[in-house]
Amino acid sequence: MVLINGMEADSVSVHDRGFLYGDGVFRTFRFENGIPLHWDLQYAKLSSDCNALGIDCPPESRFREDLEKFGIGNFVVKIIVTRGIGARGFLPEEGMVANRLVMTSPLPENPKREIVARLCDLRLSHQPRLAGIKHLNRLENVLARSEWRDPGISEGILLDLEGNVIEGTMSSLFFFRNGRLHAPDLSRCGVSGVQRKRVLEIGRRNGIETVTGHFGIELLMDADEIFLVNSVIGLWQVRRFEGIDWDKGQMSAKFREWLQ
Amino acid sequence: MVLINGMEADSVSVHDRGFLYGDGVFRTFRFENGIPLHWDLQYAKLSSDCNALGIDCPPESRFREDLEKFGIGNFVVKIIVTRGIGARGFLPEEGMVANRLVMTSPLPENPKREIVARLCDLRLSHQPRLAGIKHLNRLENVLARSEWRDPGISEGILLDLEGNVIEGTMSSLFFFRNGRLHAPDLSRCGVSGVQRKRVLEIGRRNGIETVTGHFGIELLMDADEIFLVNSVIGLWQVRRFEGIDWDKGQMSAKFREWLQ
Repeated sequence: MVLINGMEADSVSVHDRGFLYGDGVFRTFRFENGIPLHWDLQYAKLSSDCNALGIDCPPESRFREDLEKFGIGNFVVKIIVTRGIGARGFLPEEGMVANRLVMTSPLPENPKREIVARLCDLRLSHQPRLAGIKHLNRLENVLARSEWRDPGISEGILLDLEGNVIEGTMSSLFFFRNGRLHAPDLSRCGVSGVQRKRVLEIGRRNGIETVTGHFGIELLMDADEIFLVNSVIGLWQVRRFEGIDWDKGQMSAKFREWLQ
Repeated sequence: MVLINGMEADSVSVHDRGFLYGDGVFRTFRFENGIPLHWDLQYAKLSSDCNALGIDCPPESRFREDLEKFGIGNFVVKIIVTRGIGARGFLPEEGMVANRLVMTSPLPENPKREIVARLCDLRLSHQPRLAGIKHLNRLENVLARSEWRDPGISEGILLDLEGNVIEGTMSSLFFFRNGRLHAPDLSRCGVSGVQRKRVLEIGRRNGIETVTGHFGIELLMDADEIFLVNSVIGLWQVRRFEGIDWDKGQMSAKFREWLQ
């Protein structure tokens, strides 16, 4: 099911700037028994990302109306907000009205808890103006995810051009080392998602010492535990990465429990 | 007029990867009296850009059929090729069929030859895997072009994160200094367009000494002439930039003539 500005539809105008330039943002999350999980955080992030691009985010009430139409089913929900339909050229017209898309897809079957990951060849570029934003310019993710087709490998881990560990192709990355939670700095690249925010808050509430910074691959390889989060998969512990096995961790299991 | 895979249409599927991820490429050029200008170069670049992203470019004959439907009018033509419609997720399915869009818009009125330009605050990021490609991830251009609304300023000039001069928000940049044509290196960022290629070839054929490399803003400010090209505007000489006036140049006029 796809709703565009509240109406059932399956296509967008070829003049929509989301299509022409990737000029928009998105969110993906679970909808369980009629409840959009962590909706307040999802809308806050959507609104913040729109704001960062100068897009006039539709009001929260509109999305609530859309989501109510989905009844009490269980889905993955994706929300897209584009800057809207405009004349040719990169300059957005003044007073543009954003377009709002809400669409559902099936929840993944047999959710995993432990996965094999690989290191991607593609390195993320630095663009402080776009860092953290979940925008529609996702070719880096497409190229990185295209590096493997082995279904036994669930995720690829991305470094930036300087060799710092940043994230997974579709997930936020954390690792434990010497008892401390390590969260890569996302001020120059990467997507700063809702589950990442939750992990950091839960860590703080539970007295977990946390460091945010630039971490090279050698620190990641020296980690006691590595885990990945996003709003659809929950938490995946990385049990194998670059030919090395990691033991089942206690901290990953704890964070999974705290997140639920 | 918009043709999608040869049929008149005005919208694309919300599941088109061009919309979801900016997973596609485009071209923009003049169509005059029924002739798509420099079509061979345009198709070669389209095909090369598709190839760089692993998109199966539709055959040239299909685009010719589309363009023939426009008759003998005068337009700007924009071509978009997206990777196609697929299942959720960054990984493209195997054997995807690309979507082909061809659309027209009016030619610009009163073409300019001399313009005022400004320096953009936004700095282009380095991504060698995407550099040169005219892909649909254009948020950097949107943000840069959004920096001004003064209609007296026709173009913004972009530096990269290291401070090298790269291009205009929608045009390729060249400058003359000490009798040599300077063309910014585009191996880390920027769009390597058809008119840029033509300028370089025409320069070579006419014995113009040319240097390609990393040039700081101080070299640009010390230029004897600065000009910008693209397939719609032709050649614009920059007569005012950052509060400095440039004399009407001879080389810009020569290149304009050679390009026509």
